[in-house]
Amino acid sequence: MLLRSEDHFAREHLKRNPAAFVGIVVFGFVNSCASFLLPVSIGEFFALHFHSQSSKAALLQTLGIHVESLQAFFLLFGAVLIAKAIAGYIENVATFSQGELFVKHLREKVFGSQINAEPNSKGSYGKYLLRYSNDMKAVQNYFSKGILGAIKNGLFLLTGTAMIAAINPMLTLILLSLLLLATGAIYCLSAYQRPFISTSRSNRSSLLAFVARSFSRFDKLKQRQLEQGAVDEFNRRSVDLYDANMRSNKIESLVQVTSAFLIFVMIGIVLWQMTMPYVHIRSSDGVMIMLMILMMQGALRGLLRVPAFLNKGRISLEKIENILVQGVTP
Amino acid sequence: MLLRSEDHFAREHLKRNPAAFVGIVVFGFVNSCASFLLPVSIGEFFALHFHSQSSKAALLQTLGIHVESLQAFFLLFGAVLIAKAIAGYIENVATFSQGELFVKHLREKVFGSQINAEPNSKGSYGKYLLRYSNDMKAVQNYFSKGILGAIKNGLFLLTGTAMIAAINPMLTLILLSLLLLATGAIYCLSAYQRPFISTSRSNRSSLLAFVARSFSRFDKLKQRQLEQGAVDEFNRRSVDLYDANMRSNKIESLVQVTSAFLIFVMIGIVLWQMTMPYVHIRSSDGVMIMLMILMMQGALRGLLRVPAFLNKGRISLEKIENILVQGVTP
Repeated sequence: MLLRSEDHFAREHLKRNPAAFVGIVVFGFVNSCASFLLPVSIGEFFALHFHSQSSKAALLQTLGIHVESLQAFFLLFGAVLIAKAIAGYIENVATFSQGELFVKHLREKVFGSQINAEPNSKGSYGKYLLRYSNDMKAVQNYFSKGILGAIKNGLFLLTGTAMIAAINPMLTLILLSLLLLATGAIYCLSAYQRPFISTSRSNRSSLLAFVARSFSRFDKLKQRQLEQGAVDEFNRRSVDLYDANMRSNKIESLVQVTSAFLIFVMIGIVLWQMTMPYVHIRSSDGVMIMLMILMMQGALRGLLRVPAFLNKGRISLEKIENILVQGVTP
Repeated sequence: MLLRSEDHFAREHLKRNPAAFVGIVVFGFVNSCASFLLPVSIGEFFALHFHSQSSKAALLQTLGIHVESLQAFFLLFGAVLIAKAIAGYIENVATFSQGELFVKHLREKVFGSQINAEPNSKGSYGKYLLRYSNDMKAVQNYFSKGILGAIKNGLFLLTGTAMIAAINPMLTLILLSLLLLATGAIYCLSAYQRPFISTSRSNRSSLLAFVARSFSRFDKLKQRQLEQGAVDEFNRRSVDLYDANMRSNKIESLVQVTSAFLIFVMIGIVLWQMTMPYVHIRSSDGVMIMLMILMMQGALRGLLRVPAFLNKGRISLEKIENILVQGVTP
């Protein structure tokens, strides 16, 4: 992810709250490890219960965990599940909290800057109100689902890939190259989506500006009986907004479908590799790898949506930056 | 889900677009079936490749599908995967489109009603602008992620449960009672969250109203040098908004963590049942059921978030309804 000039807000926020940032990464990592230990322990269960040999026992033993009975398995499974729930809850709350704090700091800065501005730079305040609502939401998503999301989901996928690599390095190489190929394709899609998001945003702005303008000359409209003209004009802009949103939504749908598709293509590759005579993947290992890949689906979807959140947030940050610059040097 | 008076907008929209609604349900169902056929076919692969017997071959045969070789398996897997991608894309686009159309219709109605209102009922238009941005977003989520989401995710879970029931009815009963118990708990959580969402919304409104008020008496503030007082007041409201949002976010985090937790408790139950001497679940059946349960995670999370979207959307619809009623009979 290339950082742009609008991202200095986020960098400054992360520098102001290093402890929270480290906390999110650490609890996120605990959550990732616990998530992938679940499939590993399930694979262990299959090996134990169906008396097949398994190579991931080695993986558990590296971590100092020995599962020798079904009872021990259920204890391990329960403990990992509880650890995952606690770490996941802390990670979620901390991520939400950082997103809210980021936006809180920004809106306070914007208000302070606007209220201290020269009277003549005030402009129409209707326009400014949107900076405090719509743009702040986009900025919050940019921070929590964009920047923190990229770190969190990236780390999750890396942990999973490392664990699969510990079981079967060759398979991991194939899966990894597929993932990289897909990431490239998604970044192209996202670059293609960017102008549509801009159009959609500017259509919404122009619709709102039109509403504000219509109401500011409400009495004039009434006197000249121009209401119907205003309604027609509003509906025309409303259709434009719908069209622009739908173009962006279609790409979003494609990204969503792609993530599920990719996960099963990866599972298909695992199954295909299992049929190869030169690869030795036992049934319990196959189960475990498939479960791990399925667990990655949410993180992959999150990662694929990162560019969209960054795009939307940066557009809003640009507008906010303009206010801040105007406020200080009118 | 109990329908409330605010929901008549959604009912009317669905009646206006019955074909789109049926299309979403049908393509959603195709998507659900394809999604669950993937684990079924993977189970079949395990049975074929590791020469274990399987009972879900019966399930595939009911559908007229015979998998006798690995080649046939990969053909089936690829075909189902492509069917799932196409149905999923159509379903997603149609859902987005209905959400956008619902909101488009509403905003055109609101504008028409406001512009035709009596001059004295105009009020401050800054307040109205939010009806066209924030509230419309909440209404769109209410419709696409609330109402359509409930239907879509509910149907997905039902399809999955029916398929698991075809394999092992006893197990399904246990899982189903767990699901119902969890749904009850989530609805209690959601009732508990409702006042927090209201506080959070009214804090945001009061913050925006404060911004609008400050700017409308901007010159007066400047003359009397009350800028610092306004900034302090703004920051106080900003902290209130942060606190209210975080209370609501904590419950949202709990709901998110609960869905992952539940899925693995269900998998744990399946594994535990597999160890019981009176239950006969083969290894390939166990793999298949586990994969099916994991596939349900996204739908379960979607279903658990439905009450939050409905809550938020209904609050906005109430405000919009007020405008419509005021506009017609001032």
